[in-house]
Amino acid sequence: MAKVLSGAGLRGQVAGKTALSTVGKSGSGLTYRGYDVKDLAEKCEFEEVAHLILKGNLPNQAELDAYKTKLKGLRGLPAPLKTVLENIPKDAHPMDVMRTGVSMLGNLETEMSFDEQGDQADRILATLSSMICYWYRFSHDGVKIETETDDDTIGAHFLHMLRGEKPNELHERVMNVSLILYAEHEFNASTFTARVCASTLSDMHSCVTGAIGSLRGPLHGGANEAAMEMIENWKSADEAEREMMGMLERKEKIMGFGHAIYSESDPRNAIIKEWSEKLASDVGDTVLYPVSVRCEEVMWREKKLFCNADFFHASAYHFMDIPTKLFTPIFVVSRVTGWAAHVMEQRADNRIIRPSAEYTGEELRPVPSIAER
Amino acid sequence: MAKVLSGAGLRGQVAGKTALSTVGKSGSGLTYRGYDVKDLAEKCEFEEVAHLILKGNLPNQAELDAYKTKLKGLRGLPAPLKTVLENIPKDAHPMDVMRTGVSMLGNLETEMSFDEQGDQADRILATLSSMICYWYRFSHDGVKIETETDDDTIGAHFLHMLRGEKPNELHERVMNVSLILYAEHEFNASTFTARVCASTLSDMHSCVTGAIGSLRGPLHGGANEAAMEMIENWKSADEAEREMMGMLERKEKIMGFGHAIYSESDPRNAIIKEWSEKLASDVGDTVLYPVSVRCEEVMWREKKLFCNADFFHASAYHFMDIPTKLFTPIFVVSRVTGWAAHVMEQRADNRIIRPSAEYTGEELRPVPSIAER
Repeated sequence: MAKVLSGAGLRGQVAGKTALSTVGKSGSGLTYRGYDVKDLAEKCEFEEVAHLILKGNLPNQAELDAYKTKLKGLRGLPAPLKTVLENIPKDAHPMDVMRTGVSMLGNLETEMSFDEQGDQADRILATLSSMICYWYRFSHDGVKIETETDDDTIGAHFLHMLRGEKPNELHERVMNVSLILYAEHEFNASTFTARVCASTLSDMHSCVTGAIGSLRGPLHGGANEAAMEMIENWKSADEAEREMMGMLERKEKIMGFGHAIYSESDPRNAIIKEWSEKLASDVGDTVLYPVSVRCEEVMWREKKLFCNADFFHASAYHFMDIPTKLFTPIFVVSRVTGWAAHVMEQRADNRIIRPSAEYTGEELRPVPSIAER
Repeated sequence: MAKVLSGAGLRGQVAGKTALSTVGKSGSGLTYRGYDVKDLAEKCEFEEVAHLILKGNLPNQAELDAYKTKLKGLRGLPAPLKTVLENIPKDAHPMDVMRTGVSMLGNLETEMSFDEQGDQADRILATLSSMICYWYRFSHDGVKIETETDDDTIGAHFLHMLRGEKPNELHERVMNVSLILYAEHEFNASTFTARVCASTLSDMHSCVTGAIGSLRGPLHGGANEAAMEMIENWKSADEAEREMMGMLERKEKIMGFGHAIYSESDPRNAIIKEWSEKLASDVGDTVLYPVSVRCEEVMWREKKLFCNADFFHASAYHFMDIPTKLFTPIFVVSRVTGWAAHVMEQRADNRIIRPSAEYTGEELRPVPSIAER
């Protein structure tokens, strides 16, 4: 018989097994295959972490070189996909663009067998930046960009396409850190979406498309964008404090704080905060970073709520001149590694995910003729 | 603390509430808002059932007329969506086409507020047939069809676009029955995908796109296609029996039989079987229907496995000259009503669906330098 769960949303219910990550359990609070995210963000490039998540191990130099060469070779977009992106209007939601781009890619390069899953994941990983930047530059600037650049990393590739010139070393490093921090996070809603889809033995593009759709929701992705839209209004830390106190009094929702699983801090915050500070100093900022720090102080003092991964990402991305509407798409570029790895894990030990429901509707009743309704 | 579930795939675990349907609980085994599917399939058109599922009640004549007029007015495809469909190759998976079509529509007619959810659901319902037939006729026949027909029902609209002429009364009736039978089925994997996506408060197009991706999986949709590919090989009932016995002996998977929830029969089978028999008689078939009946007898005799909704759908669709690769897309045209209704239900009483995982991976370990790997 079906069992009624105590909480909604399957909170605290084990829905499967994973060897990919732990959240709130060991190290600083987030580990990928046993490595602390803090340790990885300090010592690795994103491609090393993508290799860890997707292939199972941190690559040695030869493996890393080979993997980066492979990914570089996969940055081009097929012509029909470019046509699709050119037909998406400027005011579209960028997450809808990514969802449609991956879905279209699935028509052109369909996964015909699970033997292809690793290559399909790499191809999607390599093209996501190309897709979003191609659409953005075409719809906003009227430019058809070349996506096949020779940038060393995915982070540099993204910034290069966006700006038309190679980024400096600091910006490339911050992109690496950011992509590492967002790469994987156990059974969050978008990853769980990918696993439910994978459990029907559907293809990789369907799983990733579904996950993008879930990450699009304001309760999931998008908190970094919402944080930016809030803090960019404020001209000083004092103004930020006054405005926040008002928001708290009016019980308005403030994005970028607290977390469903972490209870005392989000281990990703300290890391990105440090890089945001470095970027602030680099660009000579005297407003946005102090505003952000004051927000953190106020929320902790008033509500014992800590910044999550998203809050200092807002200022960090802004200091790198990334348009706010592209913040969540960067999350996709990173998290696709986690999604794809979860799809492979689900496939390796699969049972279709098909829960039950508690019925709260009408009892059995006869269908009345249309005249009697 | 997280609780370890006894079975994988959340089987028998209550993941939420619904007032939309019961499976294996009352009436013939499947009820929509309290009405037995058998009763609905006998007395209603699909649009009445869509109204029931999406709006909450069986429409009276005035409501039904208004609803059909509304849906008729929503059959047209925006030009950029047509361009996208024209760029999808002939050999693409038709479910990838539908997934991409709905995703593209979301770029052009984005759901900006949940106030729009009913209209968005109707628009998607009205355009799905247009999308798949537009792509099919363009890629296979080189024809750009007019999708804004004046056909009275969605079933007739579909057949009309596919064939270039209005269907007869029998075929329209069978489409109505088929669309009613597939419309809703509680927390199956595609519907659950839509609900997980909805739980992040994402938009309707993301939820439906994700659901299509899950229905694409061979463990979920597609059993009617697989059944067709099996039975079309056999020239007589006796050959079917011999071949099936061989398949059983070799322990090959036979699609279209058994069900995760129903244990003794699928209530949808008797209904579609009766219509398949009528169609067989109408077209003068002396092979496919007898073959199908023999398959049913053999599977029950040998394995106590019953036909599910999909098995006699194969012959029924085939008798109406529907290409096998469009069988699962028809499932989408129907099931979108259930998906959209579940999305609305999830939104009305939401908590983000975020289960936990049992960790089976590496213990905490330091990141080695790249030279040490």
